[in-house]
Amino acid sequence: MAEKKAHPIFYIVLVEPKNSGNIGAVARAMMNFDVDKLYLVNPCELDSVCYARAMHATKILDDAKTFSCFEDAVKNLDYLVATSSIESKTDKRHLRNPLFLEDFAEKVLEVKGKIGLVFGREDYGLFNEEIAACDIMLKIPTSESYPSLNLSHAVTIVLYSLYLRKAYIPKRRRPMGPLEKKKLYEFFGQLLDDIDYPPHKKEHTTIMFKRIMGRAMPSKWEYHTLMGVFSKTLGKIKRTQGKK
Amino acid sequence: MAEKKAHPIFYIVLVEPKNSGNIGAVARAMMNFDVDKLYLVNPCELDSVCYARAMHATKILDDAKTFSCFEDAVKNLDYLVATSSIESKTDKRHLRNPLFLEDFAEKVLEVKGKIGLVFGREDYGLFNEEIAACDIMLKIPTSESYPSLNLSHAVTIVLYSLYLRKAYIPKRRRPMGPLEKKKLYEFFGQLLDDIDYPPHKKEHTTIMFKRIMGRAMPSKWEYHTLMGVFSKTLGKIKRTQGKK
Repeated sequence: MAEKKAHPIFYIVLVEPKNSGNIGAVARAMMNFDVDKLYLVNPCELDSVCYARAMHATKILDDAKTFSCFEDAVKNLDYLVATSSIESKTDKRHLRNPLFLEDFAEKVLEVKGKIGLVFGREDYGLFNEEIAACDIMLKIPTSESYPSLNLSHAVTIVLYSLYLRKAYIPKRRRPMGPLEKKKLYEFFGQLLDDIDYPPHKKEHTTIMFKRIMGRAMPSKWEYHTLMGVFSKTLGKIKRTQGKK
Repeated sequence: MAEKKAHPIFYIVLVEPKNSGNIGAVARAMMNFDVDKLYLVNPCELDSVCYARAMHATKILDDAKTFSCFEDAVKNLDYLVATSSIESKTDKRHLRNPLFLEDFAEKVLEVKGKIGLVFGREDYGLFNEEIAACDIMLKIPTSESYPSLNLSHAVTIVLYSLYLRKAYIPKRRRPMGPLEKKKLYEFFGQLLDDIDYPPHKKEHTTIMFKRIMGRAMPSKWEYHTLMGVFSKTLGKIKRTQGKK
């Protein structure tokens, strides 16, 4: 029997969309690129304008899941991608240190699992705590003089970019899951504590580590190897400290 | 004197757009990708909905040129590109035999002159005689089950694709250099030694670490932060071991 190809499954997550026409336009773009899972966090009403803009994609609207908060919407997704037109001017701000769409699109099709593509509010985008909860921050290259894309345009560009590359899918690695990710970041946090890392730098450095791992998308096997190194390191520090 | 690079100049030509919101959304997308020349053939009224959707791109609407027929709009353009979601099933129908967007985008930036990107009506697209008047027919890859893109989405995808390839290369993060990479891997190797990592696994694990970092492409600043964590970790282990 032929092995079934495991593709990542994309979920479009719209956080507090205020314009119902945009939601309909997003649904249409999703159908144009064979993506059908729509999650809405605290959206405006899906009114007749919304359905009119969706054209033939009304089923996506009918099947959309609504959540009252961001955490609930994303808790069952394996990998979260924040999108923003706003880019940090220096690369010291890890939180908004972005991966460019084309680089992301090339890598993401190698993994499997549920990938949440998270788009923020029309006016404010995503809040910092929402971005921090994501594995990576995605940047769509746009004009410096007017970078802010319409919501459905942003979704369209991301979906088009992914759709283009689906034809050329290399062999995929099994990525580490959410629990494994959590554990890895806990170990990293523990390491920072054990080496007396300056507390005021800890959050920044932890987010940087998340971003590096988010870009690298380690496989399960790489995860286990990394964890082996971490636990040996922590063990060594603890043992020798106990001897003080 | 430095040779001035000759870029093509792009003109967005909308043929008989019926939905004023679409025209506004197109203007916004144009400004997002640094294109400002809009030609309208027999359009609907540019009403308040149109201006609202344009957001900061109202100047593009104000400067748009209106024509009563297709021939007048395109007569001063050097090269005409028809766009359509409809694709001919056989390649015998030369008229609609398309060039794929990505292939077009790679080539077109080498030419100079006025390039008209022609988009048809929301419902009927372009008529055969309009397509025949164009130099090429462009195809945006979309789902076979629902290929028809919203007008402003189609414009957005084409402009994004061209923007990506422009002499403009998106400013990426400053990646760490070869010396920094070497140092990082040395520190990792040192860590493996200091934690008594099994020697027969060392090479494999070092390569894995290189692969993870290779995919993550850390910036210079991330490199320095990572090195800070490593050297504190190595220092901690050394100091406590020295006390044994």
